[in-house]
Amino acid sequence: MATKVTPRSVDYSRWYTDVIQMADLADYAPVRGCMVIKPYGYALWENIKEGLDRRFKATGHVNAYFPLFIPYSFIQKEAEHVKGFSPELAVVTVGGGEELEEPLVVRPTSETIIGYMYSKWVQSYRDLPILINQWANVVRWEKRTRLFLRTTEFLWQEGHTAHATAEEAIEETLLILNIYEDFAVNDAAIPVIKGRKSESERFAGAVTSYTIEAMMGDKRALQAGTSHFLGQNFARAFDIKFLDQNNQLQYAWTTSWGVSTRMVGAVVMVHGDDQGLILPPKLAPIQVVIVPIWRDDEERARILEFAGQVKAALEPEVRLKLDDREGFSPGWKFNDWEMRGVPLRIEVGPKDMEQEQVVLARRDRPGKEGKTTVPVAGVKQAVQDMLATIQTDLYRRALAFREENTYYPETYEALCEAVAKGFAWAWWCGDAACEAKVKEETTATIRCIPLDQEPGTGPCVVCGRESRERAVFARAY
Amino acid sequence: MATKVTPRSVDYSRWYTDVIQMADLADYAPVRGCMVIKPYGYALWENIKEGLDRRFKATGHVNAYFPLFIPYSFIQKEAEHVKGFSPELAVVTVGGGEELEEPLVVRPTSETIIGYMYSKWVQSYRDLPILINQWANVVRWEKRTRLFLRTTEFLWQEGHTAHATAEEAIEETLLILNIYEDFAVNDAAIPVIKGRKSESERFAGAVTSYTIEAMMGDKRALQAGTSHFLGQNFARAFDIKFLDQNNQLQYAWTTSWGVSTRMVGAVVMVHGDDQGLILPPKLAPIQVVIVPIWRDDEERARILEFAGQVKAALEPEVRLKLDDREGFSPGWKFNDWEMRGVPLRIEVGPKDMEQEQVVLARRDRPGKEGKTTVPVAGVKQAVQDMLATIQTDLYRRALAFREENTYYPETYEALCEAVAKGFAWAWWCGDAACEAKVKEETTATIRCIPLDQEPGTGPCVVCGRESRERAVFARAY
Repeated sequence: MATKVTPRSVDYSRWYTDVIQMADLADYAPVRGCMVIKPYGYALWENIKEGLDRRFKATGHVNAYFPLFIPYSFIQKEAEHVKGFSPELAVVTVGGGEELEEPLVVRPTSETIIGYMYSKWVQSYRDLPILINQWANVVRWEKRTRLFLRTTEFLWQEGHTAHATAEEAIEETLLILNIYEDFAVNDAAIPVIKGRKSESERFAGAVTSYTIEAMMGDKRALQAGTSHFLGQNFARAFDIKFLDQNNQLQYAWTTSWGVSTRMVGAVVMVHGDDQGLILPPKLAPIQVVIVPIWRDDEERARILEFAGQVKAALEPEVRLKLDDREGFSPGWKFNDWEMRGVPLRIEVGPKDMEQEQVVLARRDRPGKEGKTTVPVAGVKQAVQDMLATIQTDLYRRALAFREENTYYPETYEALCEAVAKGFAWAWWCGDAACEAKVKEETTATIRCIPLDQEPGTGPCVVCGRESRERAVFARAY
Repeated sequence: MATKVTPRSVDYSRWYTDVIQMADLADYAPVRGCMVIKPYGYALWENIKEGLDRRFKATGHVNAYFPLFIPYSFIQKEAEHVKGFSPELAVVTVGGGEELEEPLVVRPTSETIIGYMYSKWVQSYRDLPILINQWANVVRWEKRTRLFLRTTEFLWQEGHTAHATAEEAIEETLLILNIYEDFAVNDAAIPVIKGRKSESERFAGAVTSYTIEAMMGDKRALQAGTSHFLGQNFARAFDIKFLDQNNQLQYAWTTSWGVSTRMVGAVVMVHGDDQGLILPPKLAPIQVVIVPIWRDDEERARILEFAGQVKAALEPEVRLKLDDREGFSPGWKFNDWEMRGVPLRIEVGPKDMEQEQVVLARRDRPGKEGKTTVPVAGVKQAVQDMLATIQTDLYRRALAFREENTYYPETYEALCEAVAKGFAWAWWCGDAACEAKVKEETTATIRCIPLDQEPGTGPCVVCGRESRERAVFARAY
């Protein structure tokens, strides 16, 4: 793995695909727009899953599994939904050697089939709320694809809940948005802006779509998770009705929300550098790699024994690997693990062994600045502290980067300049025409209308009308 | 959940589907042959996954993810494979509104697409072995379906490994078979017979298929997991070649192996009774339910406080639920949790509270025989011991049941009688004609040729020829 990736400054897009492949996260599949998630990439996804799943379960959600195939007629029942998803469908027309009477859609998302099941399961207010999540694969026939960010098939979780009142459903939608933020900030070390989508960017069939938006290393935005208040749209389409406490028949209020393998792409783009990946310790499949340094066979045996003691002191709390491969120089190994983004390297050489110490080298601080020598006696605490520091520092660095590249343009001209180099918070009147003009002339879109707004009003950055909210404009993935 | 299931003795098949639905494990989906795995059933599957995944990882396997869609031409590359799977394929012919140039098969199993990727990844003996597993959904267009046992779509793990030598690949195949046995015996409390499949029952494309076979409550056999030595069949079909240590180009040797959601069906059928499910403690989503018993509101508050203390003493080591629902009698709750198969119930009444004790009631021993009174002070140890005892007893009971219903017929007539009422171990000459005759005349098939055989020879139970091995004949799911 001595080969170098294309530098970020030369070609960010090539840097991204180089890193994904050279760090062994994923490979292209022999099917249009699909990828293979390789073991290292999948281990990262498993940690993302675990971090989210734990939070869902702690807030009363349960997992279930619904069919991959959806009758074509289901998709057509919610007017906006069919409009949004029709162009992206993969359709099964043959099963068991015979043409099917009704074609089956490979799920692009599961509101419809889950709505159908909920209508069977819900009769009374006592059957509510239903708080179900599903970990699954979905398929959307995308025109342009990119590893992890946009693939024909991807993995995700999709939560689908049903409630007796609109208030409760909205509360759920925001609870999940906060879980997504908490995961992004604390596990992925990615600062996000919580906000609601404009009408034009809303999920097909939603009343309100909420999102977390993150800034990537090239200053573009990435939608990293969405949470939708669906009102009674799907309840009406699929007849999810219940008898309330006054014995009145009511339609339920539903929500849906999802985070996908796209999150892996976000982690790569937010933290990586020209040496490759940098993984936040909480998500890293390998948090610490021990690289032993020896000159000859006699020394090798003794160093490996010493390294084994260090390993034993750290396990099982720390996820680590002792790289005892022969035939590779320490320098080669350093590069290899840097490419894979292992947050902390422990160097163990003859001098260290003599002095009962080891060298900790931070992935996020290359060179001498990131090296510390610690006595073996206190290595466990030192490593755990260092991993916590790296986790925090990665977040702070990403936050500072976003702040540096965030602008508050007051004029249309300033907006156009701002979106070419970062995020632009600007007054927006709420008119789709103003939004469309920006998109057409700059390719930037409204990423969200942030939930946390300073009070006040100001002139719309496009039309000048008095506006009550700022929107975040940016070019996006 | 006061409704009763159809008794096993009246109609085993209806009993099975009644239990699945009334214990809330699964529901029928609006797509032919598909099911919805409900939260309680999915929690059971999550525990099965965890038990297997832990064992795979402990033996050096890693998870990855390969595409759902397989180009149609891939399926056709291995002659036996295409013959076996062609009749069962679901085919995507339309994507993004357009007819596809090459139709895509929804994976029925992934040897082909994974073989294609391995041919890209493997160049040298240093790239071997590859020890990858995948948790995924697969689709087989089955004619007759049954909840969990045979559904059009099902969930499973499929391991796919590649090795430099045949010996190593065979060793892997048997390592996995032993993992499957270990999981079945120790987690699912299901005794299994390890053996190899006859040629007619072999996986399409395998050289040797190994299996674990279990006896269900109606004395039929269920194939609960398979592990296949694929020889070089898929390596040749997909060109998985490597330079060996002598710089010679060689085809790799591959294996594949899988356990599916069918395992849930096995757990239901092996342990359940006329009151519903009985779950082995290691897999039970809820291991213990605390049912408080009160007469009035004043007592209710005090009992709930006491029950809360019991709960606190047991968590988090024990997965438990305190059933504090109002408006349901204790007896109704007992039935409800019995239907769901919770292994241990803790009853907490006013008298128990006074005497600082609780009553433990075993799900697998209905009535007084299964009740024990234990002091609150020692409740944690008592509960953990009891769960371990239940786990062991369930296994012993299943083993005794299988032994009681296993026969060793020496004549063809005795074989025909034996397969009507259980498993038949009988000498078999290895001739497919003898096997076919049994199948045609009794519907029983050779489940496996057990790996553990008493030495010796005997006359084939069908044709009388000298035979070196016994086969297990049984009617099967």
